[in-house]
Amino acid sequence: MNATAPRWASVPDLDTPAVVVDVAVVDRNITRMVHELRDRGVALRPHAKTHKSLDVARLQLSHGATGITTATLGEAEVFVDGGIPDVFIAYPIWAVGRKAQRLADLARRAPRLLVGADNPSGVAALAAAVGRSSRLEVVVEVESGEHRTGVQSPEQAVAVARAILDSGLRLAGVFTHGGHSYASADAALPAANDEVDALLAAAQAIGQLGVDVPMLSAGSTPTALLSSRDGVTEERPGTFVFGDRQQVALGAHPTDAVALFVIATVVSTEVPGQVVLDAGAKILSKDLPATLDGHGFLPHYPQAIVRRVFDHHAIVEVARGEAPALGERVIVVPNHVCPVVNLVDELYLVDDGAVVGRWPVDARGRNT
Amino acid sequence: MNATAPRWASVPDLDTPAVVVDVAVVDRNITRMVHELRDRGVALRPHAKTHKSLDVARLQLSHGATGITTATLGEAEVFVDGGIPDVFIAYPIWAVGRKAQRLADLARRAPRLLVGADNPSGVAALAAAVGRSSRLEVVVEVESGEHRTGVQSPEQAVAVARAILDSGLRLAGVFTHGGHSYASADAALPAANDEVDALLAAAQAIGQLGVDVPMLSAGSTPTALLSSRDGVTEERPGTFVFGDRQQVALGAHPTDAVALFVIATVVSTEVPGQVVLDAGAKILSKDLPATLDGHGFLPHYPQAIVRRVFDHHAIVEVARGEAPALGERVIVVPNHVCPVVNLVDELYLVDDGAVVGRWPVDARGRNT
Repeated sequence: MNATAPRWASVPDLDTPAVVVDVAVVDRNITRMVHELRDRGVALRPHAKTHKSLDVARLQLSHGATGITTATLGEAEVFVDGGIPDVFIAYPIWAVGRKAQRLADLARRAPRLLVGADNPSGVAALAAAVGRSSRLEVVVEVESGEHRTGVQSPEQAVAVARAILDSGLRLAGVFTHGGHSYASADAALPAANDEVDALLAAAQAIGQLGVDVPMLSAGSTPTALLSSRDGVTEERPGTFVFGDRQQVALGAHPTDAVALFVIATVVSTEVPGQVVLDAGAKILSKDLPATLDGHGFLPHYPQAIVRRVFDHHAIVEVARGEAPALGERVIVVPNHVCPVVNLVDELYLVDDGAVVGRWPVDARGRNT
Repeated sequence: MNATAPRWASVPDLDTPAVVVDVAVVDRNITRMVHELRDRGVALRPHAKTHKSLDVARLQLSHGATGITTATLGEAEVFVDGGIPDVFIAYPIWAVGRKAQRLADLARRAPRLLVGADNPSGVAALAAAVGRSSRLEVVVEVESGEHRTGVQSPEQAVAVARAILDSGLRLAGVFTHGGHSYASADAALPAANDEVDALLAAAQAIGQLGVDVPMLSAGSTPTALLSSRDGVTEERPGTFVFGDRQQVALGAHPTDAVALFVIATVVSTEVPGQVVLDAGAKILSKDLPATLDGHGFLPHYPQAIVRRVFDHHAIVEVARGEAPALGERVIVVPNHVCPVVNLVDELYLVDDGAVVGRWPVDARGRNT
């Protein structure tokens, strides 16, 4: 369940709390995922909601990723305008009002832009927003077991595909997110199977319309290496780039490949049996997956548990004889890395405890 | 448990998700709290971590608040530099390294700056940071039942007070946060009693050193009107300015006085029994108090429950015959308003459904 400590000689000398990233480990994580997928003949289109950073996106492309994924139009604007040439908004954008205008503008200036849809009405809104001659590509979202968004059957996939073709938009293919892979360590393989089955069934049904379905896109960090087969053309994992406590607990990320840490200071030790850190929910978030106990892990104090988090305090239950001292700076592995990154303006890059640079979180807060 | 809907003719015309605030209700909430406390002879020093906004802080002072409270040095820098003349960092700041220098600089330029301490070592760090002749005022934090930070006994309060006096710093008084008031609707009165008892005991013990203890500061929204008595000199509630679902559920905020809402769009209705909103954890947060069921409340759909939130999706369980339509814009009352505000760069001000202005979230992300 727990991650290995970073191999730093000392905790970085930064005002706490701060988010620090080991660039060498990030590099290794990207290289590994690109190569593993390349061996399977599958492209990597990482989800950028994890890092929200142009620097990381460029690193991912330089290592062989074919494009990136975003969850919002606002994120896509940041990455397109930052020079990323192939961006997929894997989300059923409801394109009305200013959002319609923004999407149309972005489709004009992006070298390649794709967007999701799971309903003919959503497609009609997209078409009205961008016009028939737009190069915007639309991808049919297929539900594969998470019960969130996406069509529920191949017949519905065909209905959405028809709406795309009838509206004059380009049909790129089908995508799904097997997010039910997060339920437990045993859930990844069945979820990956569900992803493959749902994509193949939808693609086959749409293919009977006599059109190409070039893109079969699956994705989540736990399933990426399991559903990359049988005709799936790309994977969209996000968290793999940094890793987090949840991914390690699920067995979806190597324990020694966690690249992102929150550093914090012990600010109070008055209440027996616990120490209080200056890293609260406004940097650790309150993400508490059902698979985890507590809000974070202190790799140098493996018996400690982040039991409660307030806005600016974390209460760490400590074992007798194993507790950080008042004023000590500690390292915390957060439960879920995506909301953590979204809470800060920059990630500090660290090499052996020294700060060697910064990555701005360019798309932080780009929710719309 | 649930809040009244805003009295708007229509949902504001903004790209979703967005955070909107009804200024008239904010104004009423501040006026009410100032007057209720003034009737008790107690000052209001609102906690600014809720709004993180200079505009709101100025409004609070213009209505009679005597200063503001922050949780971090970074927030205090924003408010001091924005012209707020009396700022209390109600937190045991561990003043070393750059943080020591920043605190010293801020103490020099602030008309009045106060900071918390709960340990003689922390006081020593403060004194080393700012020097003996600093005008920085130190307030002894007293633990009153939340079991977070603060000294555990009057004797320890005296030890911290002695450290303050011995170091040449100014002793302002004592403070506590009866956060155990959040446990249930019945917890507020006992927690308020605990606040009063802990402050009086600590102030009396410190007074025996022959020094004045001018400030007895309590605070949380549930306890503010209950512990403002018997010598308590000020209250530091934060959430009262906007209200949220948790405060309404606790009976600590009038149902018709919720001033802040998240607006969202229904982006998918494919899975039966639910609709999906574009407002996920990156705007609603994942704050889930034990007293609440679900991650938010839709006032126009009182049977609906925000059952699951992902980064950019909220899944709302809907009752048959009572569900928002695909593409419909809806209003959500979030569980806890403080992390929501910290996730956006601005709050949109709304009057009867029309956007009439914006408040920048000046101190967003100022965690250090």
